[in-house]
Amino acid sequence: MNEVKLLEMIEKKEYVKIKERLSQMNEVDVADLLDPLDENTTLLIFRMLPKDLAVGVFAHFSSEQQSSIVNSITDKELTHILDELFFDDMIDMIEEMPANLVDKILKNSNTEERNLINQFLKYPVDSAGSIMTIEYVVLKKHMIVGEALAHIRKTGLNKETIYTCYVVNDKRILEGIVSLRNLVIADEDTKISDLMEEDIIYVHTHDDRESVGNLFIKYGFMALPVVDKENRLTGIITFDDILDVIEQEATEDFQIMAAMAPSEEKYLDASVMSLAKQRVPWLLLLMVGATITGGIITRFEGLLSSVVVLTAFIPMLMDTGGNSGNQSSTLIIRGLAIGEISFKDKWKVFWKEFRISIISGIILASVNFLKNILIDRVGLSVSLTVSLTLIVTVVLAKLIGSMLPLGAKKLNLDPAIMAGPLITTIVDAITLTVYFTFASILLGL
Amino acid sequence: MNEVKLLEMIEKKEYVKIKERLSQMNEVDVADLLDPLDENTTLLIFRMLPKDLAVGVFAHFSSEQQSSIVNSITDKELTHILDELFFDDMIDMIEEMPANLVDKILKNSNTEERNLINQFLKYPVDSAGSIMTIEYVVLKKHMIVGEALAHIRKTGLNKETIYTCYVVNDKRILEGIVSLRNLVIADEDTKISDLMEEDIIYVHTHDDRESVGNLFIKYGFMALPVVDKENRLTGIITFDDILDVIEQEATEDFQIMAAMAPSEEKYLDASVMSLAKQRVPWLLLLMVGATITGGIITRFEGLLSSVVVLTAFIPMLMDTGGNSGNQSSTLIIRGLAIGEISFKDKWKVFWKEFRISIISGIILASVNFLKNILIDRVGLSVSLTVSLTLIVTVVLAKLIGSMLPLGAKKLNLDPAIMAGPLITTIVDAITLTVYFTFASILLGL
Repeated sequence: MNEVKLLEMIEKKEYVKIKERLSQMNEVDVADLLDPLDENTTLLIFRMLPKDLAVGVFAHFSSEQQSSIVNSITDKELTHILDELFFDDMIDMIEEMPANLVDKILKNSNTEERNLINQFLKYPVDSAGSIMTIEYVVLKKHMIVGEALAHIRKTGLNKETIYTCYVVNDKRILEGIVSLRNLVIADEDTKISDLMEEDIIYVHTHDDRESVGNLFIKYGFMALPVVDKENRLTGIITFDDILDVIEQEATEDFQIMAAMAPSEEKYLDASVMSLAKQRVPWLLLLMVGATITGGIITRFEGLLSSVVVLTAFIPMLMDTGGNSGNQSSTLIIRGLAIGEISFKDKWKVFWKEFRISIISGIILASVNFLKNILIDRVGLSVSLTVSLTLIVTVVLAKLIGSMLPLGAKKLNLDPAIMAGPLITTIVDAITLTVYFTFASILLGL
Repeated sequence: MNEVKLLEMIEKKEYVKIKERLSQMNEVDVADLLDPLDENTTLLIFRMLPKDLAVGVFAHFSSEQQSSIVNSITDKELTHILDELFFDDMIDMIEEMPANLVDKILKNSNTEERNLINQFLKYPVDSAGSIMTIEYVVLKKHMIVGEALAHIRKTGLNKETIYTCYVVNDKRILEGIVSLRNLVIADEDTKISDLMEEDIIYVHTHDDRESVGNLFIKYGFMALPVVDKENRLTGIITFDDILDVIEQEATEDFQIMAAMAPSEEKYLDASVMSLAKQRVPWLLLLMVGATITGGIITRFEGLLSSVVVLTAFIPMLMDTGGNSGNQSSTLIIRGLAIGEISFKDKWKVFWKEFRISIISGIILASVNFLKNILIDRVGLSVSLTVSLTLIVTVVLAKLIGSMLPLGAKKLNLDPAIMAGPLITTIVDAITLTVYFTFASILLGL
């Protein structure tokens, strides 16, 4: 069913048919379908949905749509949604909501829930704590498989996953994990302590969510336990939330690396003003930075006016320097992000980039030299000036492009800042200084 | 345990202790630990591992290490590994292996396996077929839950996942899916046909794996069925394989967008020559492209030598144009990759970028104008020339940066090619043409 069809059916008041059709659809698709509709129509259809589907659909609404629904429904309806909503989805929702609606939600929660919500809202935005959920299956070491399965049957419906179960002691310290697969395949009277895996890989509430994502990729986990400072189990992170994190973290890096403030807004939904705000500050900063390069040109104005042909090679030298630096910084930034490279590899990276840049520089310079001599016919001195500058530029650009992201990492800055646009601005100034220096020497000016 | 510790223990021949320690570790970590060791040592330790762990470790070895092990072990040992290895891991291995070892593997497979392997090797590299596995649980509609669970207990050990089970008819047409969660919670005598989900989201063997990744992100699936042209179930894709795909696809885009040939090699493992080969062709191409810009300068040499100060603003104008275009192209390329934007949105994108670029251009031009007048003191005409060029450049750069990726998509090219480096080269030429045109008019030259 698509939006046009749905609106047609609403027009004709074919509500029974609508309910039937929507009930067969995936909750994500129903949310996508209802999200663009106006407030009243959405609420009308939303109230028709079977209770279970309704909560799933609600969890996938945009925060605007969630807010307008929370605003319009009765306290009783809200309580039902809050009861059924997974805790991590509830936190996501609250984080995006205006204060008066947050109050309405807290008013409809009990004291225990309120305390938990307040605790969760305190986790830093990019931390493991901010994406974990509290609906998981807890088992005890002394249980046997039959008991464990009975426990899962009784409580499993409200858990975000039952496929990985967590064994904790009386102090909630994590002692082991056991998969539903092993429970189902094992004998009824096997003890959990004999079945559980004790070498557990876990994360802390304040760990960075990007590094949590890398753990999921490395090990292919379905869920990962999260413990607090006292090593007590406080939540779990499931793979479906990590899929979003991995996508968002990459998108964020793409944006920062293209000199934009990162934003989670979808491009087509974002307003022109918010997109402009994302972009202008960096453009301004880099524009001002580029005036340094202009200053260098001004300083060598005499040189340029006596050998005007030198100006013609400035764009090519600047672009090649920028591109060379951009290649290196991109590989290093990405390597750092996915955990393939770390600060301790700095000398390995330096040496590698040095050799690559020598090879690249010589090839580029040779091609350029031939072109200068045979096609441009600018004479030996100018050809040599341009070609030597090319080699030095490529080498410096690659070294700067690879070292700055590593330096940023060391200083706990986001390495993605040290990407193409900033590297280009820095390399431009260096390129021109090198160019004019060679020109002064080789052209005897 | 780390490598140094392990080598120490090997030196002291503490094999029992080694076996004990490794048996407690995650298979991924054991593979990471053994992978850098020399052939003989790896084989020595590998043969000590408990059979189950050994196969898991083998699956995570690098293809070089896998090849050397396949080369060294007996046919009997190989048969055991092949029997236990998941089919998708086997295909991954074979794809990277020298022909003589592939022969050794095929020799140790039965006819049915050989046919399957040959069929799987034919799927395109980036297709759903190339990442799917054939070890999944098949159920029949008429079974009851008790029978289904018994079936899973009997066959589940060798399946890649048992958490999603697939209901097919006699022609292997997919009729429904049912989760282990529902099976465990349901009554023993519920019929599978009453429990199964019939509105199934599935993919085709030849679908692009990037779009499959987007489906996983959108729906949070644990596994997705893959059907052939006749809609017969031929495999499933599990979330752990998709995690790798999502990471690799983003890395590939980062590389292409930084003007490099994409490569799956790890940076630190890659040789200097292979990294240089990844980078030099694009650098050469862009260098040659940039000479067009040089040609434009040559054409306006007269203008430049009579108003030398104009040269000083060339780097700033080029950089700002490049940065503006880069911002737009990055957002559009990423939006296309994650399925947020499609070709049909072209006019929406055009109109959005046009308005953003007008706002950005005016802000940048105003700041620049004030700076030109108050700090650089270059006079009104030059200030106006530079500022007007800035506005036009930003607008054109953003329109070109946003439209070229959409055009590439339409032509079935990879939109990531239309990123910063290429956009910069194109925008540079336009910027300078605009600049010199304004200069001619405003300075009356």
